[in-house]
Amino acid sequence: MKTVKKHVQDSEVIKTEMVLPNDTNTLNNLMGGKLMHWMDVVAAISAQRHSNSIVVTASVDNISFKNPIALGNVVTLKAQVTRAFSTSMEVFIEVVAEDIPANSKYATHKAFFTFVAVDDKGRPVKVPPLEPTTKREKELYAGALRRRQLRLILANRMDPQDATELKSLFDLEGVSQKQ
Amino acid sequence: MKTVKKHVQDSEVIKTEMVLPNDTNTLNNLMGGKLMHWMDVVAAISAQRHSNSIVVTASVDNISFKNPIALGNVVTLKAQVTRAFSTSMEVFIEVVAEDIPANSKYATHKAFFTFVAVDDKGRPVKVPPLEPTTKREKELYAGALRRRQLRLILANRMDPQDATELKSLFDLEGVSQKQ
Amino acid sequence: MKTVKKHVQDSEVIKTEMVLPNDTNTLNNLMGGKLMHWMDVVAAISAQRHSNSIVVTASVDNISFKNPIALGNVVTLKAQVTRAFSTSMEVFIEVVAEDIPANSKYATHKAFFTFVAVDDKGRPVKVPPLEPTTKREKELYAGALRRRQLRLILANRMDPQDATELKSLFDLEGVSQKQ
Amino acid sequence: MKTVKKHVQDSEVIKTEMVLPNDTNTLNNLMGGKLMHWMDVVAAISAQRHSNSIVVTASVDNISFKNPIALGNVVTLKAQVTRAFSTSMEVFIEVVAEDIPANSKYATHKAFFTFVAVDDKGRPVKVPPLEPTTKREKELYAGALRRRQLRLILANRMDPQDATELKSLFDLEGVSQKQ
Amino acid sequence: MKTVKKHVQDSEVIKTEMVLPNDTNTLNNLMGGKLMHWMDVVAAISAQRHSNSIVVTASVDNISFKNPIALGNVVTLKAQVTRAFSTSMEVFIEVVAEDIPANSKYATHKAFFTFVAVDDKGRPVKVPPLEPTTKREKELYAGALRRRQLRLILANRMDPQDATELKSLFDLEGVSQKQ
Amino acid sequence: MKTVKKHVQDSEVIKTEMVLPNDTNTLNNLMGGKLMHWMDVVAAISAQRHSNSIVVTASVDNISFKNPIALGNVVTLKAQVTRAFSTSMEVFIEVVAEDIPANSKYATHKAFFTFVAVDDKGRPVKVPPLEPTTKREKELYAGALRRRQLRLILANRMDPQDATELKSLFDLEGVSQKQ
Repeated sequence: MKTVKKHVQDSEVIKTEMVLPNDTNTLNNLMGGKLMHWMDVVAAISAQRHSNSIVVTASVDNISFKNPIALGNVVTLKAQVTRAFSTSMEVFIEVVAEDIPANSKYATHKAFFTFVAVDDKGRPVKVPPLEPTTKREKELYAGALRRRQLRLILANRMDPQDATELKSLFDLEGVSQKQ
Repeated sequence: MKTVKKHVQDSEVIKTEMVLPNDTNTLNNLMGGKLMHWMDVVAAISAQRHSNSIVVTASVDNISFKNPIALGNVVTLKAQVTRAFSTSMEVFIEVVAEDIPANSKYATHKAFFTFVAVDDKGRPVKVPPLEPTTKREKELYAGALRRRQLRLILANRMDPQDATELKSLFDLEGVSQKQ
Repeated sequence: MKTVKKHVQDSEVIKTEMVLPNDTNTLNNLMGGKLMHWMDVVAAISAQRHSNSIVVTASVDNISFKNPIALGNVVTLKAQVTRAFSTSMEVFIEVVAEDIPANSKYATHKAFFTFVAVDDKGRPVKVPPLEPTTKREKELYAGALRRRQLRLILANRMDPQDATELKSLFDLEGVSQKQ
Repeated sequence: MKTVKKHVQDSEVIKTEMVLPNDTNTLNNLMGGKLMHWMDVVAAISAQRHSNSIVVTASVDNISFKNPIALGNVVTLKAQVTRAFSTSMEVFIEVVAEDIPANSKYATHKAFFTFVAVDDKGRPVKVPPLEPTTKREKELYAGALRRRQLRLILANRMDPQDATELKSLFDLEGVSQKQ
Repeated sequence: MKTVKKHVQDSEVIKTEMVLPNDTNTLNNLMGGKLMHWMDVVAAISAQRHSNSIVVTASVDNISFKNPIALGNVVTLKAQVTRAFSTSMEVFIEVVAEDIPANSKYATHKAFFTFVAVDDKGRPVKVPPLEPTTKREKELYAGALRRRQLRLILANRMDPQDATELKSLFDLEGVSQKQ
Repeated sequence: MKTVKKHVQDSEVIKTEMVLPNDTNTLNNLMGGKLMHWMDVVAAISAQRHSNSIVVTASVDNISFKNPIALGNVVTLKAQVTRAFSTSMEVFIEVVAEDIPANSKYATHKAFFTFVAVDDKGRPVKVPPLEPTTKREKELYAGALRRRQLRLILANRMDPQDATELKSLFDLEGVSQKQ
């Protein structure tokens, strides 16, 4: 009964936070761990909205922390589902930071989280497909497949004990696309 | 004066936590965001111990969340620096979860975080080199270079708007190894 | 230099939260005090966006709590400035609660908070005027003056020790409209 | 069985808090939202003591925030039931702030919260009547009726979309006193 | 200028808390560590009130945790200074727990904390003497000296490495009463 | 079935924390109450590991707070069971504080907590005996008996209303060693 297609705006979630003292490190900047915590919450709500299910975090893609976000600044996190697979969804999170009295929006972060929809026993359940509409939504949708392949490689093969050469890691021929 | 080599055990940090109600989702399992928050704290302390500096999170590698960790369980996070570059350090975090009354250690997670050592103005400072000793330390040390190359690729090139094929992304020839 | 008019959408802020165990009372419903805390944060950011200043809460209008919001539900708070006075702003907050797996949006709250813009010594500073555009924005703008008069009456006269009759309280003739 | 009269001192509750960094805004003063959260907790306990029931917040009257309370200061909140209606109670909260090393008590706030007594299914239950004793208790008791009428008006009629004039709002003739 | 005598009621502080989910252990009872945290806060405020100074915790006497306090119950902590020494104060804390809907006050704890008054550099400063008035206050005042001697013995001598017999520990003759 | 002897290292637990703003007092030093909270958590996990049971805090021995721990410093708490009695365990906690950028480990605290192992109804259950191995473990094991006698005396006799002389308190002849 969950076969109706959903659109990107159905899963858009915005979360605005103020950086408080306990969220900051010795330099009075937001700690990376706190930002990831907020990302996880906003992305989980987005995945819930797409699937109308309970969801659990399945994976987080590589995140770079380039610009520090200062104490007292305002952080806006915007999440949206980019693509749905059989029981999982990729969520894209964009972060904007503002020093409002200084009238500057000075920092951006981007992240991809993946969630699995589950029933109340924790068993995976089907999710409706996502239909992208705008040019940007279609690009994110197309990229989701490539990122998913990379995630599978990294999750299965990039073990620290693994002595294989990096290059051969990216021989994608053998990657099954089971979804 | 920070040129003395350091060893892996100099930066070993253990953090043990109990999963409390506010850390859990609807299924009474630890939220991924909370676990990443703990990972960031333990890894930052490890990088501090290696560098005797303030540190800031630079990046987080892909993390998979395979096994749920239940309310009331005990989570042990162990962090150690695997390799130091000019002003940055890769930290490896291993997570073990226990249901102690049931006498089971039932879940493991692994993650790599990267930190930059900074002075009190936030400017990068040199860190001492790390000298691996055991076989496992040497493997983690060797792998750190490959993971660092991948991080650079992902950080610079894997933009959602990017239409390039995944395969060509991994043509590593042009990746400068500036550290 | 802050004389440029601002529009309602300049100050729109959305904050999405999940109801966690510590936010709830014995019946597993969101505590009123926690909801007011979230309202204050989202409204303060809205007033900051209008004024590009630090702001402090000046007053909160009467709030009714009609529909309980359950543990695990998602709460979306939307704030916008309705009218600016000399150094103060009225902010309107609408709250929507969702039980996403049940696909229901089941509760709404409304509140008006007032903030004063201040400099870093805490002294009031001028704020730009707000220019309403849509029919609804104009109604909220017009109502803001009536609510402001009521606030002044309640703040100055409705002392518990006051034995005056309720009716005479609302003889508005003597209320100066100093702003 | 809950028909025994109760007195004001039966429901007196005192809550003392220290203002910590995370409770403060950019000016290092207590945020209004945090103070309201504390007010809600202390008032709910007071209403519990009067009714020996679970209680839920029904409404909050207009609150003015006049004097800022600084980081490190001590806040004492005192709550007491002023009057009981059929299943609801009005609670009066007085707030005193102290800079103890400076030997000054420098700020006061007052608020009225209303709570409904409920059973463990959330259904309203009867509460015992309150019998005021002192002159001040009798004044608060008398005022409770006027404040209740105002609350009904504000809750039912003061809709932002409402174009009615403020003055006519206070024509109390038609207000039924159903409790 | 702080030589005026103070009385016990000058330092009386009451703190009322509700036991929330994150404060509890697997059995849904208040964790001992959380209760001690609350004790420390209420006792510190009491010592501040006596000394009109910043205070730091110097020691905590043996505490027994006999009666569990359940989730949702109300905890009332009452603190008062029992005796002032040169720069330190002993504070007595009594804890009462209530299951208000069940109309029972079912648990009590008692504890003694000692605080030192300090200036803003952390250096000890003189505190005014305490003058006990009632019979109970005088008993607590007299007992404070005995408890102080025991504290000195335990702090100085009861080292885990210490092989001395327990009995000889309590040969009090040699204990200097330096304050 | 829990009759197998356990060793000290079976119950060793390490917890590393960073001192955040909300953990500190006016002097920017860690509050004693927060440190005791962390001690309770790490010691409870240690007692869980020894007994493979749920545990509840039974008592805390006298703790002295000698060296302040500053904001931003790292605190390492190490807990281990020193001796098991019939259904209870004594846990020894050592605290080390570090200012890592300054390369100093500058503070130590020691504490003894006692826990009782319970089933899921809260009824005491037997715990396995502890077998000390090293010289230090044997000293802690021997001392545990003396500390337990003192705890019984303090818990049963050292009532504030008690007018008995301190000295006679320590006539240990009559102390039954019921465990």
